[in-house]
Amino acid sequence: MDAEFSSRFEAAIAKIKQVVGEKQIILKGEAFEERAGDTSPKVQRPAGFVFPASVEEVQAIVKVANEFKISLWPVSKGKNWGYGAATAVHAGALIVVLERMNRILEVNEELAYTIIEPGVTYGQLNTYLKENHPHLWTDTTDSTPEGSVLGNALERGLGETPYGDHFANLCGLEAVMPTGERVCTGASPSTGAKTWTTHKWGTGPYLEGLFSQSNFGIVTKAGFWLMPAPESFSSMLFEVHDEEHVVPALNALRRLALKGVIRSNIHAGNNNAILMILHSYYRDYSKKSAPLTKDEQDHLCNRFGVALWTFNCGLYGAPQEIRAWKSLIKRELSAHGTILFMTDPKMAIAQKMMTWLSTHQTSFIGAVGAKLFRKVFGKSLEYAQMGPYQHNLLKGIPTEYFLRYAYCKSANAAPAQGLNPARDHCGEMWHAPAIPFTGEHFKIVRDACRPWYEHYRMDFCMTLLLINPRALVTLMGIFFVKEDPEETARANALHKKLCEVTLALGYQPYRAGVASMPGLLDSAPDYKELAHRLKLALDPNLILAPGRYGVAPFHP
Amino acid sequence: MDAEFSSRFEAAIAKIKQVVGEKQIILKGEAFEERAGDTSPKVQRPAGFVFPASVEEVQAIVKVANEFKISLWPVSKGKNWGYGAATAVHAGALIVVLERMNRILEVNEELAYTIIEPGVTYGQLNTYLKENHPHLWTDTTDSTPEGSVLGNALERGLGETPYGDHFANLCGLEAVMPTGERVCTGASPSTGAKTWTTHKWGTGPYLEGLFSQSNFGIVTKAGFWLMPAPESFSSMLFEVHDEEHVVPALNALRRLALKGVIRSNIHAGNNNAILMILHSYYRDYSKKSAPLTKDEQDHLCNRFGVALWTFNCGLYGAPQEIRAWKSLIKRELSAHGTILFMTDPKMAIAQKMMTWLSTHQTSFIGAVGAKLFRKVFGKSLEYAQMGPYQHNLLKGIPTEYFLRYAYCKSANAAPAQGLNPARDHCGEMWHAPAIPFTGEHFKIVRDACRPWYEHYRMDFCMTLLLINPRALVTLMGIFFVKEDPEETARANALHKKLCEVTLALGYQPYRAGVASMPGLLDSAPDYKELAHRLKLALDPNLILAPGRYGVAPFHP
Repeated sequence: MDAEFSSRFEAAIAKIKQVVGEKQIILKGEAFEERAGDTSPKVQRPAGFVFPASVEEVQAIVKVANEFKISLWPVSKGKNWGYGAATAVHAGALIVVLERMNRILEVNEELAYTIIEPGVTYGQLNTYLKENHPHLWTDTTDSTPEGSVLGNALERGLGETPYGDHFANLCGLEAVMPTGERVCTGASPSTGAKTWTTHKWGTGPYLEGLFSQSNFGIVTKAGFWLMPAPESFSSMLFEVHDEEHVVPALNALRRLALKGVIRSNIHAGNNNAILMILHSYYRDYSKKSAPLTKDEQDHLCNRFGVALWTFNCGLYGAPQEIRAWKSLIKRELSAHGTILFMTDPKMAIAQKMMTWLSTHQTSFIGAVGAKLFRKVFGKSLEYAQMGPYQHNLLKGIPTEYFLRYAYCKSANAAPAQGLNPARDHCGEMWHAPAIPFTGEHFKIVRDACRPWYEHYRMDFCMTLLLINPRALVTLMGIFFVKEDPEETARANALHKKLCEVTLALGYQPYRAGVASMPGLLDSAPDYKELAHRLKLALDPNLILAPGRYGVAPFHP
Repeated sequence: MDAEFSSRFEAAIAKIKQVVGEKQIILKGEAFEERAGDTSPKVQRPAGFVFPASVEEVQAIVKVANEFKISLWPVSKGKNWGYGAATAVHAGALIVVLERMNRILEVNEELAYTIIEPGVTYGQLNTYLKENHPHLWTDTTDSTPEGSVLGNALERGLGETPYGDHFANLCGLEAVMPTGERVCTGASPSTGAKTWTTHKWGTGPYLEGLFSQSNFGIVTKAGFWLMPAPESFSSMLFEVHDEEHVVPALNALRRLALKGVIRSNIHAGNNNAILMILHSYYRDYSKKSAPLTKDEQDHLCNRFGVALWTFNCGLYGAPQEIRAWKSLIKRELSAHGTILFMTDPKMAIAQKMMTWLSTHQTSFIGAVGAKLFRKVFGKSLEYAQMGPYQHNLLKGIPTEYFLRYAYCKSANAAPAQGLNPARDHCGEMWHAPAIPFTGEHFKIVRDACRPWYEHYRMDFCMTLLLINPRALVTLMGIFFVKEDPEETARANALHKKLCEVTLALGYQPYRAGVASMPGLLDSAPDYKELAHRLKLALDPNLILAPGRYGVAPFHP
């Protein structure tokens, strides 16, 4: 920070303190350091963190930022690990953390929506619904239950259930503009309009999209659609064992999604992605700081019963619907792999078996039981124990369980609870290009990226997420030992290379980390120019998140 | 037109002629008059019509408009009858008709989308698909097959099938900005991006919404999602006969839509709405230029077998899915009315019966047959003949059949084909408030509006259209004898009153006619202010459709 900036920043902070109170600003110390990091290797150092408690406080902060020309970077909870967490594209930003604004303002049972503030987490919303509105389910991501529902939706993150396109299920926003005004999109509830949270498009130009993946406003409240609890539920595990079945299996899944037979998100992971969740085993190998050899991978996959590709999705409906869908799914997919459907009662029995087996592991009968279990289910006990978490996740119940992958190469194992990979110095980065949902597009991306993992000596970890029946995310994870500068440099180089390679092939990321935001829109120059014009019209001082998603450069 | 405007306009036209050619401009004469009207009573007189053939010609026209500060009003086909058709909010606009840009540029069978130009009509797209890609269905409205697919989607019109939210199924736009630049939303295909037409949200701020119900650009091309033909199909007719069942029936339908049991749009009409389609009978009464008395209404409803409320929707899926849905629908709805499911084979048999009966009407056996038919189906032959059109409409097959309602009070009966209510001087206006989808909200709107129909001596004609499972349009039609100034004045007064009454209750229109556009956003002042700022940033000369949807006043 140069002296001129410092004096402006200090003057701004003095004024902001009057708004939020001394305690709601962090400028240094342990609390600062805990928030200033991410799992990605290089982040820009914030100038501080501020924690407003209301929309009025947010407005006041924005006005001060305009007065002193300091830049703000809003986050809801800052748990966007691997994408930059609570850090900005540029150094010296004041991070506006909205976590204190965490009220669930309304739940409407009939119309199945809630109105929430940005600090509301998946865990909080889920618990609240279970206790007060058990007939409504929410969606969740497979990351931390501490993640923000609105933050993820505005970032256009993806969940698990039929409500997995989180931005699509956002309806009715209140935002503070970069010049300090408060705006409601669509039908304005302040004037008594009734359809703010039920009619997404509103009347006149549809402007809600301006506030997603952008720097055009700070969303302070929003409507979010919830799923009426289905009469019955079944999770589905679909495993593809052979390379030649991967492409046709993906095409069959697209057909099922297009027909609406599968309406939930579909998540898939390659063998490495599954092994990384079973991290304590993977860690023994990865300590070598080299990728698994083919033999090691084969050995681990055999030991646990991990397939080449593993797909998860859920079926939600009346029993007769689920019966129909199961038969249609079997018809499409049986030729390409193995299918396992699990209902709640079946899962309860499986859980009892697993509990018994794990408490009798050391006894002879326990060992025989485990072998029998492996024989019947094709899975080791350790792997099978993942099942209930996956099953519940598809019911929108968040869990930390899967976040363990972030620790797969960390110096320390994942804690029993309260996982926070940024705090725990895990090395993790994501690259997430979107592709048209065909097996052929998948193959192009996979075959273009995998060699670079080999080149940079990293384990090729790929998961797939449905955006809609026509588009898929090929999410690639890079996991590395953050304490090892050489490995970190390789991770960085690989990430850069993946961005280059996939953009050159025409696959834009569905979501980007702050590190890759500069230049992100260079492949769409006309669109970038339009976004810049809008930004200048709404934020003449460029104080709000300059450079976010490649729009408007850093204001010096 | 004052002299200063005239000279600017003439200079602009001279330049535009060099772009499109003399023949592609209409400034007066019969062709002008045919296009300059609408079914609504008062429209602003355009200065002329221009018919560009390419995006380059559109860009050139926009540049000339900026040079001479004349205002443009783009329409795709101009068939937006009852909402203003091809006329602007203000007089003196040059109407840019995009009907010559009518190429179907691509159809992708695997990913089920098409890329089309704004001149492509429902009829054209449907015929093209039936001939070349029979496994893909398109949606349609129940208005003319001559309507523009893109025009309706940008207007956020609603169709019939599960793809009935036309704007939601738009993915990837090319637009000419008000300053002449060409922009693609989301992933830019010009740079080789692959997800332009499959990933609606793209990367960075989602800007596609800027081009719907707005004046921010002229859309020249877009991706539009198509429906894979289902394995089987059944239409559903659900009739509610008693007042006390209307509210619970609507709530039951919402639950079915929220659960995804009914995935198509749901259309409903009250008794008058159905009688107006059976127009040649209705016309005998309406010639009195007074609303039906209760006795007349009862008599007509009895004669034809018209229920208090009639709902139509479709079921699309594999036979086992449709079986499941039928049972779930019966469970929810049976208590509230009568349900009739029709499959293609059943409809074919019914059609044969109807053909036989209508050719034997005068014979004794024909008369007995008609009576028997009425006894079995509860419908007169004339009414039952509507069935196949409705059934096909739910399969996305457009028809002029239902457009006959527009002629119900016209001096002339509807022609056998080539219906054009604006040309034929029919009197028709729409008012279309959106409401949260509950029976209670429906009741509030109906009970607030119906007395005004009585007050202004018009038949209360209300139809319902699903926007999504949480929002419904209560579409009210006003039909009047356009040649009668007194009745036209009443129609106008009623329309104005309905707008006032529903806005005061907090129900914004899902879509508006040009007549009600000024002041449309006054109930959402913060949102209006934001839209104005964006407009000024994108269209500094305010040449593009000033005043459209209440955004940016007329430029003098």
